[in-house]
Amino acid sequence: MSKLWQKTTNVNELVESFTVGRDREFDSQMAAFDVLGSLAHTQMLQSIGLLSADDLALVQHELKGIYKTIEDGSFVIEDNVEDVHSQVELLLTRSIGDAGKKIHSGRSRNDQVLVDLKLFFRHELQQVVNETEILFRQLIELSEKHKDVLLPGYTHLQVAMPSSFGLWFGAYAESLADDLELVLAAYKITNKNPLGSAAGYGSSFPLNRTLTTELLGFESLNYNVVYAQMGRGKTERIIAQALSSIAATLAKMAMDQALYLSQNFAFVSYPDTLTTGSSIMPHKKNPDVWEIMRGKCNRLQALPNDVAMMTTNLPSGYHRELQLLKELLFPAFTELKSCLHMATFMLQNITVKEDILNDAKYAYLFSVEEVNRQVLNGVPFRDAYKQVGLAIEEGNFNPDKTVNHTHEGSIGNLGNEYITAAFDQLLGNFNFTKTEEAVSKLVK
Amino acid sequence: MSKLWQKTTNVNELVESFTVGRDREFDSQMAAFDVLGSLAHTQMLQSIGLLSADDLALVQHELKGIYKTIEDGSFVIEDNVEDVHSQVELLLTRSIGDAGKKIHSGRSRNDQVLVDLKLFFRHELQQVVNETEILFRQLIELSEKHKDVLLPGYTHLQVAMPSSFGLWFGAYAESLADDLELVLAAYKITNKNPLGSAAGYGSSFPLNRTLTTELLGFESLNYNVVYAQMGRGKTERIIAQALSSIAATLAKMAMDQALYLSQNFAFVSYPDTLTTGSSIMPHKKNPDVWEIMRGKCNRLQALPNDVAMMTTNLPSGYHRELQLLKELLFPAFTELKSCLHMATFMLQNITVKEDILNDAKYAYLFSVEEVNRQVLNGVPFRDAYKQVGLAIEEGNFNPDKTVNHTHEGSIGNLGNEYITAAFDQLLGNFNFTKTEEAVSKLVK
Amino acid sequence: MSKLWQKTTNVNELVESFTVGRDREFDSQMAAFDVLGSLAHTQMLQSIGLLSADDLALVQHELKGIYKTIEDGSFVIEDNVEDVHSQVELLLTRSIGDAGKKIHSGRSRNDQVLVDLKLFFRHELQQVVNETEILFRQLIELSEKHKDVLLPGYTHLQVAMPSSFGLWFGAYAESLADDLELVLAAYKITNKNPLGSAAGYGSSFPLNRTLTTELLGFESLNYNVVYAQMGRGKTERIIAQALSSIAATLAKMAMDQALYLSQNFAFVSYPDTLTTGSSIMPHKKNPDVWEIMRGKCNRLQALPNDVAMMTTNLPSGYHRELQLLKELLFPAFTELKSCLHMATFMLQNITVKEDILNDAKYAYLFSVEEVNRQVLNGVPFRDAYKQVGLAIEEGNFNPDKTVNHTHEGSIGNLGNEYITAAFDQLLGNFNFTKTEEAVSKLVK
Amino acid sequence: MSKLWQKTTNVNELVESFTVGRDREFDSQMAAFDVLGSLAHTQMLQSIGLLSADDLALVQHELKGIYKTIEDGSFVIEDNVEDVHSQVELLLTRSIGDAGKKIHSGRSRNDQVLVDLKLFFRHELQQVVNETEILFRQLIELSEKHKDVLLPGYTHLQVAMPSSFGLWFGAYAESLADDLELVLAAYKITNKNPLGSAAGYGSSFPLNRTLTTELLGFESLNYNVVYAQMGRGKTERIIAQALSSIAATLAKMAMDQALYLSQNFAFVSYPDTLTTGSSIMPHKKNPDVWEIMRGKCNRLQALPNDVAMMTTNLPSGYHRELQLLKELLFPAFTELKSCLHMATFMLQNITVKEDILNDAKYAYLFSVEEVNRQVLNGVPFRDAYKQVGLAIEEGNFNPDKTVNHTHEGSIGNLGNEYITAAFDQLLGNFNFTKTEEAVSKLVK
Repeated sequence: MSKLWQKTTNVNELVESFTVGRDREFDSQMAAFDVLGSLAHTQMLQSIGLLSADDLALVQHELKGIYKTIEDGSFVIEDNVEDVHSQVELLLTRSIGDAGKKIHSGRSRNDQVLVDLKLFFRHELQQVVNETEILFRQLIELSEKHKDVLLPGYTHLQVAMPSSFGLWFGAYAESLADDLELVLAAYKITNKNPLGSAAGYGSSFPLNRTLTTELLGFESLNYNVVYAQMGRGKTERIIAQALSSIAATLAKMAMDQALYLSQNFAFVSYPDTLTTGSSIMPHKKNPDVWEIMRGKCNRLQALPNDVAMMTTNLPSGYHRELQLLKELLFPAFTELKSCLHMATFMLQNITVKEDILNDAKYAYLFSVEEVNRQVLNGVPFRDAYKQVGLAIEEGNFNPDKTVNHTHEGSIGNLGNEYITAAFDQLLGNFNFTKTEEAVSKLVK
Repeated sequence: MSKLWQKTTNVNELVESFTVGRDREFDSQMAAFDVLGSLAHTQMLQSIGLLSADDLALVQHELKGIYKTIEDGSFVIEDNVEDVHSQVELLLTRSIGDAGKKIHSGRSRNDQVLVDLKLFFRHELQQVVNETEILFRQLIELSEKHKDVLLPGYTHLQVAMPSSFGLWFGAYAESLADDLELVLAAYKITNKNPLGSAAGYGSSFPLNRTLTTELLGFESLNYNVVYAQMGRGKTERIIAQALSSIAATLAKMAMDQALYLSQNFAFVSYPDTLTTGSSIMPHKKNPDVWEIMRGKCNRLQALPNDVAMMTTNLPSGYHRELQLLKELLFPAFTELKSCLHMATFMLQNITVKEDILNDAKYAYLFSVEEVNRQVLNGVPFRDAYKQVGLAIEEGNFNPDKTVNHTHEGSIGNLGNEYITAAFDQLLGNFNFTKTEEAVSKLVK
Repeated sequence: MSKLWQKTTNVNELVESFTVGRDREFDSQMAAFDVLGSLAHTQMLQSIGLLSADDLALVQHELKGIYKTIEDGSFVIEDNVEDVHSQVELLLTRSIGDAGKKIHSGRSRNDQVLVDLKLFFRHELQQVVNETEILFRQLIELSEKHKDVLLPGYTHLQVAMPSSFGLWFGAYAESLADDLELVLAAYKITNKNPLGSAAGYGSSFPLNRTLTTELLGFESLNYNVVYAQMGRGKTERIIAQALSSIAATLAKMAMDQALYLSQNFAFVSYPDTLTTGSSIMPHKKNPDVWEIMRGKCNRLQALPNDVAMMTTNLPSGYHRELQLLKELLFPAFTELKSCLHMATFMLQNITVKEDILNDAKYAYLFSVEEVNRQVLNGVPFRDAYKQVGLAIEEGNFNPDKTVNHTHEGSIGNLGNEYITAAFDQLLGNFNFTKTEEAVSKLVK
Repeated sequence: MSKLWQKTTNVNELVESFTVGRDREFDSQMAAFDVLGSLAHTQMLQSIGLLSADDLALVQHELKGIYKTIEDGSFVIEDNVEDVHSQVELLLTRSIGDAGKKIHSGRSRNDQVLVDLKLFFRHELQQVVNETEILFRQLIELSEKHKDVLLPGYTHLQVAMPSSFGLWFGAYAESLADDLELVLAAYKITNKNPLGSAAGYGSSFPLNRTLTTELLGFESLNYNVVYAQMGRGKTERIIAQALSSIAATLAKMAMDQALYLSQNFAFVSYPDTLTTGSSIMPHKKNPDVWEIMRGKCNRLQALPNDVAMMTTNLPSGYHRELQLLKELLFPAFTELKSCLHMATFMLQNITVKEDILNDAKYAYLFSVEEVNRQVLNGVPFRDAYKQVGLAIEEGNFNPDKTVNHTHEGSIGNLGNEYITAAFDQLLGNFNFTKTEEAVSKLVK
């Protein structure tokens, strides 16, 4: 197998298979970003005189060609080639000879991988944000659509106060808006350029890191080269924390859904095609999608801890196991995007039950409402309280089951327009256009 | 014991001691914030006609008096009083009678606690930011002071490339700057007003939540009342994630310190008063402070997981165990602030060793440097590489041990001014002045 | 403050308060065990000629006196005394002078603490086992008492098959039996003698570790002295895993209880004194005890991870932060014992609802039962299935609601006697008598 | 796709792909165990009259044939077949028609999967034990071989006391012995028969669960059928805890190795083929294998928490996400076995450095030794201590660098024979022969 760091003696095969692990599998997802990194790096090398204009032209042409094969799906890491970086170099040297090797000047494998990961994570975070936005809008739509349908509100899992589907759907929308704040922080921490940090201690070549920062559309640099390397593991942990927050929102919604689908609640339902059951138990509508989502999202909730456990107490400087973090993070993006997508899909098919509160067991929901109503009509609180309490005790409590809440964020005034405005403002802060334009320009 | 929710039948004492737990202990830390909440809530009640101007004047006067006793340390939760909220109410009713009970109109214990916690967390986060800033500036100062002192840089714990104390201290400074991004996200999520959400389903009183938001200096509202309640546990988890990020930075620095203090490295030292040892083993300078810091910070790294484990799979709506999160979060702030403080203190007393690289085992650090130097002088890479390799093989490798790195973030160009600028910009985004002014106005 | 390792220069006070932390608080729980360790160690010292018979007599007499003060509650760690070990030494030297200092020969602070912790953990595990046994027998009793009361059995939170309170209570009993297997493993790993390992590298004194092993009632030794030290952190993690298993059983039971107490299930109830509510919402019976238990037990479920996070990636040899593990483990025992106790107490007061299955929504529970009944009567499965399916479709499904399960572990044949036998056999394997006898002999 | 629980309406494809996930991938590892379960179940069915002797003969013949295809690697789950259970049924009905479907009588998918998992886990645990034994014996061999080669022993990462390679290797051996105690507990909890619990509520068929317990070589039953189902998730967590304990031992050893390979320690070395480096940095011997092992094992240390996070707060009864635990557990066995194997392989190739203690920085290692030596020669402790302290202070400390430790588990008396005896006794308690014989008999 062709390797950049190859020693004269062959590395024992057992060792190789143990240490390389699933790298090739994940590297294919990084290929496009590896090419982007090399496109920017070589432009910079030419600008500081470490690559001739002719060599640059050759290299750029070839790299853009490889980028196209990645986009159209025809790029493969050949057997016996260790990883995506070696494959790209192999393709370059095949077509343009030694000029292809010059892409490594002033760059070590460490910062090459660092920049690939940053570009990949940045791209994945953008997709997560996109899926989150779709789900958010779906929830707001449902909240508005069903704003007049009442639900029992629970505290301690005890029937407590009137709630509504408007509140319920809207709550998860607002939860996603707060999650987005965390994703934005993760995005900002990710969107800084580590290229030029070499093996974590910089280079004696007169690199222009500001130039590669601009070319790759990064917002800023990881300045300190030791910190650039220290960001590995840390970036993954912070991203995992951001993903885990969205996951926590989805998991809680999934738990509510599984409960509300139970015959003991029966607040919502789905078409038969979206649940599972058996012909002999026609009542069973197993909420498999929500259960699987709950499980996947709880798995994601444990992810930041997995990253922390693998990186804690490692002194500064690169350690080989940092590579294993790909096995944790890469599938996490796929899983979360798929959960967001399925949540939207399920909600597009949800039916909410009307008239839930007509059931006798929900009558006492209105006891506090009734006291407040009397207070607003001028009855002193103690008298109102006593009178309602007595009516309940004597079995004469026949509450008015209309709900007249008016304050911000209440049943009668959901505030979805403010929640949406907050969400949209956060979205704008990602400034995806800037990075998209930089990438387009690089590969054009 | 006096309790707001008291039933006629006495609650079994065993039950009470089990469920109340350490609440009284933590509540004393929340007292000032409970008073702030009541000051704002009652102003709002008066504005919507649920409290007379006279009653408001009475209540505000008393609450401000209580606030002062909290500030001067004379406030206590009396024996037989369940919690801080009951104590405040008791003091009010003692002095102004039934008017004191009106502070509960349009408010449930749930949103009262929610707003107390938000105000408390907001305050603690500000203190964490303050301590972080002090440590940050200490690190930048050390980075500048020792920028010319070289260190071996390690990869795989193997001697790899020249590094410097300038890079090492600066790396941790820049790490804190990224951590601050996460703290800012946590602060923004915290700094939203839950008051008015009642038991998590809103109120039939015509509350003005925008008014209490302004009075308490919150940036915005938790609009949806179901979400306001759902924020409990979630806010704690996100704050824990932010704290854990600073903790991870400190823990890594502590590991480096313990290693560099070992006789096998001997890169740094401290006055005898700051390490422990024994007269019979005069060489021993145990880095107890750094070890304890490492332990405390790794404990904090596990904190978000603790919160997640306690809250995952709980359906929406309040559950009593949410109260237990105080036992996790409150000490975490104390611990982290104390670790930040001790880190600054220790660094004020650090001595770095000069001439480390004169030791023979670090000679090969310069092999890549030497190759690059020749390349920059026009020698083709392959020839330079071969020549240096040969010199090493033959034992003739006598590298020039000066380091001439010039790019952004390298030994010769640390970029501390840019890192500081980024840190300062983040600091500004917290906008602490706004909240401080609101609080001052409330208690004046 | 008096310290064994005191250097000439005073350790900075800030350092001391940071590193000593909550040691004094926890040390009081270790006092008795510290005395036991010294009683055994000094007997051994005399046996190998490092202590005279006279000195031994003096020391033993004093130590037994101190042990009595601990038992009767009059022992205190004085102000200005760092920890329990220093306090014991202080008392000894006060009364018998220099002979009191000889208890340190051939022992370092490290193995002194190690043996204290092992003895303490052993004792606490025994108490946990005792509380577990009481809860186990309570569950078995309830299982037998209510074996004929049917419950709906759920899969996917969907009504699925007939179950019974006999099964439900019995399941948690059997779960505790499996948990006990893990506790036994933790107990065996704990119940090995580390004394004599000194600072983790042994001693040049001709110690007789087999003798102290016998005197302290340990089952065996941690032979290898490096491993004896390595056991710190590891023992804590394994104990935490065992405690977390019981906690997981309790947390799941608590979740069931909170659900079954909800008006939407209403399967069980408790006296008003054991739940909380309000006079205005008389229907509310908040299951605070079960919720707090769920929270505390989920906290315990995260405990092993906390320990692992604090100890992972530490190289072999003692590190100061290992001391912080006391802050995790000591309260964990208290919490778990209290949860076990409260679970028993609550279950002593539970009322189960009869005739639950008469509710129409549970009719389909019996569809599979009905098919099986016909099959057992000779109807081919396909015909039976079709016939029942048709009846359901046409609304003519009137199942026989008796349940006739006969196999091992089923509604009609709970197997509680076998479960109890398995539990009792595990109990016997702890062999508490041996350790109790050794301890009695030491302090007599 | 053929499914046992198929409804008339087709399940939406999106739903299916989301919920089925990676089941087919993992199911192939369970195939053999699924057949074993069916072999035992059908024998039992015939014994209670639910299967004719002729049908039994047909079914057994076919199942044994399928078992052989699994053993020889020719078994595949066909496209469009959902899982291993459906594939086995398909093969049966293809060859013997409707008789093949009778294997489902008195069994639900739930207990079928439960028993498959138990048999699979049992088998994997046995393999883990085998690999652990090999590593254990390798460590003991190295401990004996290098028992006279001294090492510095560290506390606080400070040079502290003389240690030896005998102690170092032996410590990890003894650590594995304690780990095995936990694996044994996990094995015992696993090795109980859940078959017959149906969907978690038992069956109205007169099953003979004792018979299937014997046929499958289980030690006992999960009696209570609700508990049998509750064991899902719990068994996985406990197994994960056992695996994590071995992983913690390996991770610590890996950390030691990476440190000891650093040029700053240089205590051990490996052939070039087992480390990585570069020709330009000939001094670099990157310990990639140990780093990757440390990473994989720390990942495994987080595994129990992952399982707990996915299962906590789920009420009793089956939930679909329990299926996802396969994605956590199955690769964990593979990873741990591979780590154990690689650790053995690396240790077979280790070279330890002699004469380490001749380096001046290790001189003070012997200060305590020297004091003790004088004490044993009759010098009062205080005088000896003072004299040694003075010698050190004056630079006249020339210690005798021989080490004369004699007690159990010390440098001169490693106690490896006792450690080995303890390990062997634990090994015997697994009683693998019993299960192997049962399996052989079933498939013969």
